[in-house]
Amino acid sequence: MVGFEWYLDFVDLSYEVSERDLIAVFKVTPSEGLTIEEAAGRVASESSIGTWTTLTTMKPSLRRLMAKVFEISGEIVKIAYPLDLFEEGNIAQLISSIAGNIFGMRAIRGVRLEEVYFPKEYIKSYRGPRFGIDGVREKLKVWGRPITATVIKPKVGLTAEEYAKVAYEILTGGVDLLKDDENLTDQKFNKFEERLSKVMRVIDRVERETGERKGYLVNVTSETEEMKRRVKLVADYGNEFIMVDILAAGWSALQTIRKIVEDLGLAIHAHRAFHAAFTRNRKHGVSMYVIAKLSRLVGVDHIHIGVPVGKMEADVKEVLTTERVLVEKEFNPSPGDRLHLKQCWYNIKPVFPAASGGLHPGLLPEVVKLMGKDIIVQVGGGVLGHPDGPRAGATAVRQAFEAIEEGVSLVEYAKSHSELARALNRWGFIRPK
Amino acid sequence: MVGFEWYLDFVDLSYEVSERDLIAVFKVTPSEGLTIEEAAGRVASESSIGTWTTLTTMKPSLRRLMAKVFEISGEIVKIAYPLDLFEEGNIAQLISSIAGNIFGMRAIRGVRLEEVYFPKEYIKSYRGPRFGIDGVREKLKVWGRPITATVIKPKVGLTAEEYAKVAYEILTGGVDLLKDDENLTDQKFNKFEERLSKVMRVIDRVERETGERKGYLVNVTSETEEMKRRVKLVADYGNEFIMVDILAAGWSALQTIRKIVEDLGLAIHAHRAFHAAFTRNRKHGVSMYVIAKLSRLVGVDHIHIGVPVGKMEADVKEVLTTERVLVEKEFNPSPGDRLHLKQCWYNIKPVFPAASGGLHPGLLPEVVKLMGKDIIVQVGGGVLGHPDGPRAGATAVRQAFEAIEEGVSLVEYAKSHSELARALNRWGFIRPK
Repeated sequence: MVGFEWYLDFVDLSYEVSERDLIAVFKVTPSEGLTIEEAAGRVASESSIGTWTTLTTMKPSLRRLMAKVFEISGEIVKIAYPLDLFEEGNIAQLISSIAGNIFGMRAIRGVRLEEVYFPKEYIKSYRGPRFGIDGVREKLKVWGRPITATVIKPKVGLTAEEYAKVAYEILTGGVDLLKDDENLTDQKFNKFEERLSKVMRVIDRVERETGERKGYLVNVTSETEEMKRRVKLVADYGNEFIMVDILAAGWSALQTIRKIVEDLGLAIHAHRAFHAAFTRNRKHGVSMYVIAKLSRLVGVDHIHIGVPVGKMEADVKEVLTTERVLVEKEFNPSPGDRLHLKQCWYNIKPVFPAASGGLHPGLLPEVVKLMGKDIIVQVGGGVLGHPDGPRAGATAVRQAFEAIEEGVSLVEYAKSHSELARALNRWGFIRPK
Repeated sequence: MVGFEWYLDFVDLSYEVSERDLIAVFKVTPSEGLTIEEAAGRVASESSIGTWTTLTTMKPSLRRLMAKVFEISGEIVKIAYPLDLFEEGNIAQLISSIAGNIFGMRAIRGVRLEEVYFPKEYIKSYRGPRFGIDGVREKLKVWGRPITATVIKPKVGLTAEEYAKVAYEILTGGVDLLKDDENLTDQKFNKFEERLSKVMRVIDRVERETGERKGYLVNVTSETEEMKRRVKLVADYGNEFIMVDILAAGWSALQTIRKIVEDLGLAIHAHRAFHAAFTRNRKHGVSMYVIAKLSRLVGVDHIHIGVPVGKMEADVKEVLTTERVLVEKEFNPSPGDRLHLKQCWYNIKPVFPAASGGLHPGLLPEVVKLMGKDIIVQVGGGVLGHPDGPRAGATAVRQAFEAIEEGVSLVEYAKSHSELARALNRWGFIRPK
C-alpha cells in the first residue's frame, strides 16, 4: 500500500443502509496479495466516485456520494450506492456505474454482479411491462396452462412464402405463438415486411378456422430508427407482439422501443442471445438474474430465462430464483439464499418467463413441474423435427400439455394421441446436448 | 450420438472459403465426452441454420446457408458463414448470429470469439468513422504527438459550476480534450445541459487565451431518443465531440447516433465500460479485438483499448494487435499469430485508439514506446491527483510528452520543469493496482 491510495475508505462495515440506497451484491475474488476488503474497496471506489489516487479536487461534502462496502461474508460483498449517483430512467448509466470498469481491474481476479436492489424512488422512473402476464393472457385468451410458442427452424433460410406455410401448419396444430429465430431479421431470402404480411394473413385465417387467438413474435432487432419503423409496421399489420434481441441491440434501444409500444399496444418478447458470454462464469460477469430484473424494470413482457432440462447450460436453483423475481410482486429470497435481496416491485407488472432451448414433448412434464404454469414454453426443433411434420409436431406439444393438465402420464396419453406417440417415439425423454 | 443429430454435417475441412464468406475464429473448449469436431459443429450449427435435431422442413437447397467449420487446429476453430445469412448494416443481427446462443450451449465448456473477418460487400453496408485519426487531428490542429485527454475526477459529484472551473484549469494546463467519466450523464447534482453550457464557455475562453483548440468528450449516454436530443444540444453549443458508453448503451443505439453525427459533424469517443465482463476470460466470451473491429465498422472515431501499464488488466500483445486493426488500412496478422485474419478496410477510416486507466506522467514514455504517437492518451487521476492541482497536473502531462518528443528522459526534463518534477515525486513510475 502506498500513501496515495484511499480504497479502504470505501469499506464501512458499520454503515447502516438507507432506504434511498441502491444495493449491489457481488462475488469478489481478489488478485494475489490483496485482501477481500482491499478488493471490495476498489470495486466500490471505481463504481462510484473514486479512482486509483487521492485527489486535490475532492471535497469533504462529496463523501456522501461514496459507495460503501457494508457487508463482507466470504467472497460475497454487499455495496450500498447513494441514489444520487444515478440518473433516473437510464439503464446504460446504471451499467456503466456498477457494472462498468470494475470487471477489468487488475486488483481483482474475478467479480460477478449477482444482485441489484432498486429502491422505490429509482423504480418509479421506469415503465415496467406494458402488459405482463395477465395482459398477455388476456390478449391470447389462454388461462390455466403455459402459453406455447414455436420458433420456425431451420433458423434462417426459408423464404417468406415457405415460412408462412410452415406458420400455418404450426398454428393450426395448436401452438399459440409463432416466433422468429434470433438471427432472422431482414435478409435477402426473407424480407421483413413480406414475412410479416404473409404471416399475418396466416394468423387471420387460423384464427377464423380454429377460433383461437394467435400471435407472432416478430424479430424487429436492428438499428433503433429502423427498429422503430419495423415496430410501427407490426402494429399496422395488426399483430400485437414484437421480439427484440435485447442484449445484442442494447439497453438504450430497448428503452426506446418500450416507449413506443406504450401507445401501439404491443407486447415485447425479449430474446437474450449473447447473455451467456457474461452470465456463465460463476466468478465473473453478471448473473442472468440481474439481466431479468433490469428487463422487468425497463418493461419487457416475456423474457427467456433458460430451462434446466435442455440443450443450454442452466442451474435449476438459479432459473427458479430468476423466475420468481420476474413474476412476484414482492420477491423474498429463499431461506439460505445469501446472494439475493428482498425486492418490492410496486406498480411494475410481472413478466412472463420463457423456457426454451432443446425442448420436445417428452421434456414438458418436467418443465411444468419445475417452473409451473405461468410460463411461455417455446419448442422449436421439437416441433419442426416431428416425423410427420410441423402440424403434427405442434399438436404433440398441445397434447403433452393436455396430458399434464389432466394429470395423466405422457406415455398413457400417447396411447390415444398419435402425434404425441410419434414424438415420444422419436426423442423419448432425452436431454439434448 | 443418436440418430437425429447432424452437427458433424457442419464440419467440412475441405471447404474452400469464398470471397463472400464472413469468417469467425473461435477458441473452443468442448465439454467432457465431446471431441473438438463435435463441439465445433455445434457452434457452426447454432450460429447459422441448425438446431439440436434434424428437421422435416429442411430442404437440400438450404445447405448453401450452413456455416462450415473449415479449419481446426488445437482449440482454434475457423468457421465460414455465407454472407446471405446476415442483414447488411445490422450489428445486433450479426451478434445474435455468431455471438448469440453459442455461449450457453451445454456441449461447450467455453467458447471465445477471437476474430471476425468482414468481406468487402459486408463492409460496404457500414459507415465507419466520420472523421478518424486525420479528421480528429485536423479538428484539434495537433500533429506529431499523442492527443491528450483528461477525465475529471472525482468521477461524479462536482456541480456543473465546480466542474467547469476544474475544466478551465486542466485545459489551460495544456490538455487537448476534456472527458466526462462513464457514470456522469445527467444527475441531479450536475445536469447535462448546464454542464455542457458552462464547459463550452470555458473552452471558448481557453481557446482565446492559449491559441490552442480544445474539445469536450461529453457523455451523452442514455435512452436513444434522449441521446439524440443530447447530441443535438452538443452541436448547438458548438462542441465537436460526444462520448458514448457503447456497450452499456448497445449497438443499435450506437448505429443510430453514428447516423446523426454524419450531418452534425461530431466525432464519437467510445468508452467501453462493461467490456471486461465478457472479454477478460481467455477461454470464453468475445475478445476486445472483435469489439474494436465492430466499432470501426459502425464508425466511432476513438475507442478505449486499454494500456498495458495501468490499473486495468491488459495483455501487451493483445492491445497492440487491437491498435493495429484500428489504425491500419489493411491489417495483416503478425507472424505466428494464429488467431487473427487479414482484413482490408476499403473506404473505412482508421480509428484513434485511446489508452487509459491509472496513467500518470511517469508511465507515459512506456505508453508511447509501446503504442506510438497516433493515440489518445487519457490521464485522469494522474492529473487531478497532482499535489499542486489540476492545472499543474495537466502541465506535467504536457511536459512529459515534450520530453518524449525531444528524446529526453523524464527525470532529466523534470530538472527544469517543476510540474513534471512534482508529479514524479508523487507517483514515480508506479503501476497502480
